[in-house]
Amino acid sequence: MNLREIGEFGLIGRIASRVTTGPAVRIGIGDDAAATEPTPGRLILTTSDMLVEGVHFDLSFTDPYRLGRKSLAVNLSDIAAMGGEPRDFLLSLAIPPGLSVEFLDRFAEGMLSLADEHAVALVGGDTCRSPAGLVISVTLHGEQQPDSIVRRHGARPDDRLFITGTVGDSAMGLELLRRGEREGWAVERHLDPSPRVAAGRALAAAGLATAMIDVSDGVVADLGHILEQSGCGARVEAALLPRSPFFREEAGRVASSPDLLALTGGEDYELLFSVRAEREHEVAAVLRGTGTTATAIGSITAGSGVTVVAADGAELALPRGGYNHFANGM
Amino acid sequence: MNLREIGEFGLIGRIASRVTTGPAVRIGIGDDAAATEPTPGRLILTTSDMLVEGVHFDLSFTDPYRLGRKSLAVNLSDIAAMGGEPRDFLLSLAIPPGLSVEFLDRFAEGMLSLADEHAVALVGGDTCRSPAGLVISVTLHGEQQPDSIVRRHGARPDDRLFITGTVGDSAMGLELLRRGEREGWAVERHLDPSPRVAAGRALAAAGLATAMIDVSDGVVADLGHILEQSGCGARVEAALLPRSPFFREEAGRVASSPDLLALTGGEDYELLFSVRAEREHEVAAVLRGTGTTATAIGSITAGSGVTVVAADGAELALPRGGYNHFANGM
Repeated sequence: MNLREIGEFGLIGRIASRVTTGPAVRIGIGDDAAATEPTPGRLILTTSDMLVEGVHFDLSFTDPYRLGRKSLAVNLSDIAAMGGEPRDFLLSLAIPPGLSVEFLDRFAEGMLSLADEHAVALVGGDTCRSPAGLVISVTLHGEQQPDSIVRRHGARPDDRLFITGTVGDSAMGLELLRRGEREGWAVERHLDPSPRVAAGRALAAAGLATAMIDVSDGVVADLGHILEQSGCGARVEAALLPRSPFFREEAGRVASSPDLLALTGGEDYELLFSVRAEREHEVAAVLRGTGTTATAIGSITAGSGVTVVAADGAELALPRGGYNHFANGM
Repeated sequence: MNLREIGEFGLIGRIASRVTTGPAVRIGIGDDAAATEPTPGRLILTTSDMLVEGVHFDLSFTDPYRLGRKSLAVNLSDIAAMGGEPRDFLLSLAIPPGLSVEFLDRFAEGMLSLADEHAVALVGGDTCRSPAGLVISVTLHGEQQPDSIVRRHGARPDDRLFITGTVGDSAMGLELLRRGEREGWAVERHLDPSPRVAAGRALAAAGLATAMIDVSDGVVADLGHILEQSGCGARVEAALLPRSPFFREEAGRVASSPDLLALTGGEDYELLFSVRAEREHEVAAVLRGTGTTATAIGSITAGSGVTVVAADGAELALPRGGYNHFANGM
C-alpha cells in the first residue's frame, strides 16, 4: 500500500490507533497542539533528536521496527542522563517517495513498543513528504524535581567516574554491519540500544551522581563535555572500561586497537557519571533492580582534558575530539 | 565561512549566544535536555512542525531571515489556535553540504527576532548533516488554564463563524513568487506570516471561541477539521471572506476564480473560530488591541461538510479536500 492512497490523515490515524496514553495526557493526537498535565513541583525536561537517512541510519542495515525503537531510545537516553522520568513525546516524519505504509506501520510498532516499556505516550507531531531520504525528529518530555536533576557541570576533583553497561559494542556492531553481518550481540546493540532510564532515575533519586551524560559520541568525547562544564580534568584507566564478552572475543576482528574502539566508539547510550569518592560504595546498591550495573573507570582530576592510561601505566594517545557531524561533505 | 570549520558545537554556540531567556527557563541550551518551570495550574501545550526544502520552502523564493521567522511562526500559530501562551521552543536542523555559516546566522537572527516579539525562548534542539536539502523541525511549548483551552470540537449548529485578518494572500503570494515576483503585500504574507497569538489568547480568555483552528491548508479544508470533530456542517458566504486591498486588485491576475483562491488557498495562518450567536457582538471588543480584527463569514449548521454560497445565492462547487502532502510523487 502506498501513502498516496491513505494520505497524511490516514497515516496519522493508523499511528494514533496504536497509541496508549495515561491520565496526564489531556489532549493527544488530533488537535492543533497536545496538552499535558505537569506534576506539581517538578520541572519539564525536553530533548529533541533528529535522525536522517544516510547520516544516522542506513535502511539496508536496519529494519523499520528497530529503527522506530532506536529513534525513541536516543531521546530516552537524554532524559535518563538528566535523571528524569520520561513522560510523552512527539514524532515528526519527512517521508520519501516510495516508502510503503507497511514500513511505517512497522516503524510505529517498534517505536510504540519501546514507548510502552517506558510508559511514555505519543501525543503529537507532524508528517510531510521528503524529496530525498527519510527524516525522523522526536521530541521527548520528562519530569524531575528541581533539586534532583543531574547536570553536566557538577563534577569535582577526586570524584570517581562510572559508566553503566558495556562500551564499544555499538561501534563494533556498525563496523560489522558495514562488512555485511546482520546479527549478533554488537549488531543488536547498535540497532536497538537500551536507554538507561531506570539507572538514571535511581542515581538522581539517591543524589549520587554529581554530573552525568549519556554516551552518544564516545566515552572520551562525552566525558569531555562533563569536564568542560565542570572545569576539571579526568584520568581514565583503559583496562577498566567494561566490555561485553562478545567485544572481548571479537573486537580484534574490526579494530587494530580494541582499547581505542571502547574509548571512542559512539552510540552505546550508556550513562557516564561522577560520584563523590566517599559515596562510591553506594553505586552498586542504588543500581540494583535497574537492569544494569556500573563500573568505576577512573577519577576526576584538577586541570582539564581526558588522560587515558593503558594497563602498563603509559599514557594513551587519543584522536582529538569526537564525531564531527560536519567533518565530511560540507 | 563553512560549517566544517566551526563544527556542530561552534554552530550551537553561535546560536546560543543570541538567545534571550526568562526565569522559567531553568536549563537552556547545552545540557542533555532543557528544563523549564511550568506555571502552577496550567497545562503544557506542545506542537511540532517540520519544514523541508523543496516541499515547504524554496530557497530561491525566500531569504534565510524570513525563513527563520516563518519556521517559528507556523508553530506559534498552532499554539494561538488553542488559545495558549507560547513559552519556549526547540530547533532541530539537518543542514545540507555547502550551506554557509552566514546563512545560518541570518536564519537564527530571523527566528530569534520573532521569538523576542512573542517572548519565547529557544531552549534546545539538535543539529546534524543532511545529504540533500535543509530540514527544519521546531517544537514549541505553550501554556493555558485547562478550562480556557480552545479545541476543534466545540462548534454547535447556529454558532457564527469568524476569521481573523484576510485570506488568500499567501496562496496568491506563492503564485507570484513562482512567476518571478519577489516583493509586495502577498509575497510578504507568504514569506513572513503573522501568527495571531494575541487574538487567540484574547478569545480563549473571554471564553468566546467554541472551536478554533489556524488556517494552514485553506479555509475550507481547515473548517472541515472543526466540522468533523464537532459533528456539524457549515454554510459560508464567499462574498464575506475578508480580502486585502491588494488581493481585491490583483487576484484576478493569478486565479480564474479569486473566490476559490480565498476559500482554498493555504498558509494564511489566520484563526478560524466559532462563537455562540448570542455572543457574536462581543468579538470586536475582545480582539481590540490584539493587532487584528475578525470577520463573520457564515454559520455552523446541522449535518456535515462545508456549503459555500456565492453572492447570487448559488452553491459553489469546491475541489474536494485540502492539500494532500502525499498526493504527488509517492
